[in-house]
Amino acid sequence: MSLPDGFAFAHELRVRWSETDPQGIVFNANYLLYADVGFTEYLRALGYPYPMPTKDAGTELFAVRSEVDFRGSARFDEVIAVAVRTARIGRSSFTMEFEVRRDDALLTAIRSTYVNAAPDGGGARPLPVDFVTRIEAFEAVAPVRG
Amino acid sequence: MSLPDGFAFAHELRVRWSETDPQGIVFNANYLLYADVGFTEYLRALGYPYPMPTKDAGTELFAVRSEVDFRGSARFDEVIAVAVRTARIGRSSFTMEFEVRRDDALLTAIRSTYVNAAPDGGGARPLPVDFVTRIEAFEAVAPVRG
Amino acid sequence: MSLPDGFAFAHELRVRWSETDPQGIVFNANYLLYADVGFTEYLRALGYPYPMPTKDAGTELFAVRSEVDFRGSARFDEVIAVAVRTARIGRSSFTMEFEVRRDDALLTAIRSTYVNAAPDGGGARPLPVDFVTRIEAFEAVAPVRG
Amino acid sequence: MSLPDGFAFAHELRVRWSETDPQGIVFNANYLLYADVGFTEYLRALGYPYPMPTKDAGTELFAVRSEVDFRGSARFDEVIAVAVRTARIGRSSFTMEFEVRRDDALLTAIRSTYVNAAPDGGGARPLPVDFVTRIEAFEAVAPVRG
Repeated sequence: MSLPDGFAFAHELRVRWSETDPQGIVFNANYLLYADVGFTEYLRALGYPYPMPTKDAGTELFAVRSEVDFRGSARFDEVIAVAVRTARIGRSSFTMEFEVRRDDALLTAIRSTYVNAAPDGGGARPLPVDFVTRIEAFEAVAPVRG
Repeated sequence: MSLPDGFAFAHELRVRWSETDPQGIVFNANYLLYADVGFTEYLRALGYPYPMPTKDAGTELFAVRSEVDFRGSARFDEVIAVAVRTARIGRSSFTMEFEVRRDDALLTAIRSTYVNAAPDGGGARPLPVDFVTRIEAFEAVAPVRG
Repeated sequence: MSLPDGFAFAHELRVRWSETDPQGIVFNANYLLYADVGFTEYLRALGYPYPMPTKDAGTELFAVRSEVDFRGSARFDEVIAVAVRTARIGRSSFTMEFEVRRDDALLTAIRSTYVNAAPDGGGARPLPVDFVTRIEAFEAVAPVRG
Repeated sequence: MSLPDGFAFAHELRVRWSETDPQGIVFNANYLLYADVGFTEYLRALGYPYPMPTKDAGTELFAVRSEVDFRGSARFDEVIAVAVRTARIGRSSFTMEFEVRRDDALLTAIRSTYVNAAPDGGGARPLPVDFVTRIEAFEAVAPVRG
């Protein structure tokens, strides 16, 4: 699997029957599901299997905004790739970019911002230093694509 | 909404686009989802809104077996009814019957057994007396149907 | 159910167990599902039960962009409302706004653009005149809220 | 991945966040979803990628009955295997057995019967000879497990 320009990570998956609709294409909400799966695998590639990178700090990551551009449609049984990268890291939040692709065709582009916060509405908390360090290292070592 | 013979309770719902597949019909696993929604509403009719009837006892209800007969198919935007009744009550388990219907047509019949158990594998526990009493009263007062 | 300012339509639904995650809250992709349900009901209120308003024209509506702001979380068994309005009507596309609310609390705000297009990538087509007329009439007669 | 006794095929998958519920375990209807994924991969192993083995005959496969025994629970991020075998082949129907396992632990056992039928209620049709031949060959060559 080749990686899109600017991405150091992608996760492949195969479209399931239950994810498609009577138009024969993936139901639009499921692209956010694919992004969520991609995010989990990206964290694993960073060395954070479940539970999540913020667990020691007693905080949780919450999605606060997603922008989704639907440009094409995946169909049942197609193998697609979810490319993932960190586009921005702030003090208590960060922004991820996802591209769902079938071969060279960009199907959906998603940009999601997550905030690190205390559970139950306790407010934003600084991102763990280790988390920031790992992302910076990971994104810097993006391999030559091909 | 009329009730099928032998049922004192039914819950109506409308089939969602995301629940149907490229054949244009409800994906088969979603009938178990509909039964779960019907079970929640049946418990509410018994006077048990969430949290569940076993909460005071510190136990949880787990599905241990389901038998599903698929006889017809619901399609997007159809209004269907999930009829629910208790078919058997034992010491620590009970069996529910569900019929998913569109008007007079039986689409799916489900028979599910639940056991009351301590969380985390602690084994079966007797059903709360209050739970058994309410079910017996509810099923006995089934109104004349029509 | 009161309507948020500027909205003439809302649809109530109850959060299902299957829609919530181990954090005890609705999985984020399901807010797009709720918006889709709300859009279907909005079209019905306009007088367009399924099949859709573009059927006579042989075209289909495709979501091309969604912006989602997550501000709060719904939990299992809560009754929530999906308020729906048309924010913009263009020649071949239109933009809908959705607010998912629990009582007065705004949980998620969604802004989605749909384009009317020939199936299988045949390109954008003008919105049917009848569709535009109905939306304009519907949005103009928004009742006094309360 | 080792195969359970009597099974010549299994497909691995990882539990997604969206498939788990507030108890932290896979929602019960999703085991039927996993069986569906396993069935698709079993057909692929038989040499039938989508579209399905009955396509030339103009018929479709419909699930008519499923029996599900829930014996254990999978949790988020666990890798599980769906073992699949054909338990019975009749003239127009056949029965599949599925075991969802985490390592040696059997989590769910499913037995599902499918019938080959004309679309839109036209009645049962004989299974294609090629389909029967491939299943018999596939099940006979089950490799030594380990």
